[in-house]
Amino acid sequence: MNFCSHCGSPDLHLVVPTGDNRPRQVCSACATIHYQNPKIVTGCLPVWEDKVLLCRRAIAPAYGLWNVPSGYLENGESVESGARREVWEEAAARVELDYLITLYNLEKINQIYLQFVGALVDGQYGVGEESLECALFTEDDIPWSEMAFTSSVFTLRRYFANRRSGRKLLHRACYPEE
Amino acid sequence: MNFCSHCGSPDLHLVVPTGDNRPRQVCSACATIHYQNPKIVTGCLPVWEDKVLLCRRAIAPAYGLWNVPSGYLENGESVESGARREVWEEAAARVELDYLITLYNLEKINQIYLQFVGALVDGQYGVGEESLECALFTEDDIPWSEMAFTSSVFTLRRYFANRRSGRKLLHRACYPEE
Repeated sequence: MNFCSHCGSPDLHLVVPTGDNRPRQVCSACATIHYQNPKIVTGCLPVWEDKVLLCRRAIAPAYGLWNVPSGYLENGESVESGARREVWEEAAARVELDYLITLYNLEKINQIYLQFVGALVDGQYGVGEESLECALFTEDDIPWSEMAFTSSVFTLRRYFANRRSGRKLLHRACYPEE
Repeated sequence: MNFCSHCGSPDLHLVVPTGDNRPRQVCSACATIHYQNPKIVTGCLPVWEDKVLLCRRAIAPAYGLWNVPSGYLENGESVESGARREVWEEAAARVELDYLITLYNLEKINQIYLQFVGALVDGQYGVGEESLECALFTEDDIPWSEMAFTSSVFTLRRYFANRRSGRKLLHRACYPEE
């Protein structure tokens, strides 16, 4: 941020506003306080029989690596509808959400992952615009060394653990650990 | 947003960027795309014996009404540490988080509530800077008609239902309903 988005002034300073307790970008010309907050990454692990659906990324970062369909939550969306949209955009597939499995904090880059487990409707999928390919994997076939993000590895590990125990637990973690 | 925060140009237009599928504020001068995304409101319902701790708001909106300690998640925080911070700021109290009880989507105002249940450490609390008063309530004493936000009512109702059933369920909802 080099200029105030409200009045266009370059006179921005990092100061603690009155009544606040942390520094913000404040415009000296018009007094607008520019807050910045973490973003939600929403996603869903689609399940079909004993397999899960992963997508190989056609976009940076982590081009060419595998991922649980996920992306930034948009304004005007619920976390649930964003998760369904991401599965559609990345895998051309529809899911019926089952339960929230992951709350994963990436504090250093201000991202909060919320990922669901869902049923892949009719076992049907394609290849979304943001993917090189999409494929169903059994647990033994998961390309663990070619996963895009730690959040996806976390969700996959916890999903198979949940499946073994017959429980639908939410798992929470911070990366790096608090 | 009236000016580009990167280059200061007023030449902003709502257009769908190449490879995107929804309109964004894009600067015609420097091509910066200005994304806007929902914010997380994180909080915790502190529990002590058969009571819960609520705070009466000393700030707008909903000045004078009761609330579950909650507020915007900050950059560099986990959802969990943000919830503990809010309890400290609003009720001068420490909590040990127990479980995530609420994912509540307020899509129309781009807010996603994530609220925990936690144990009020030593039963101690005060009055935070953002509160007029704080108090412990049994279920029968909750001031239902003087609650600040629908999210708090949702969390309180679900907490007492969970307590009766002996389960620690996560509850999800959209307001208004999808």
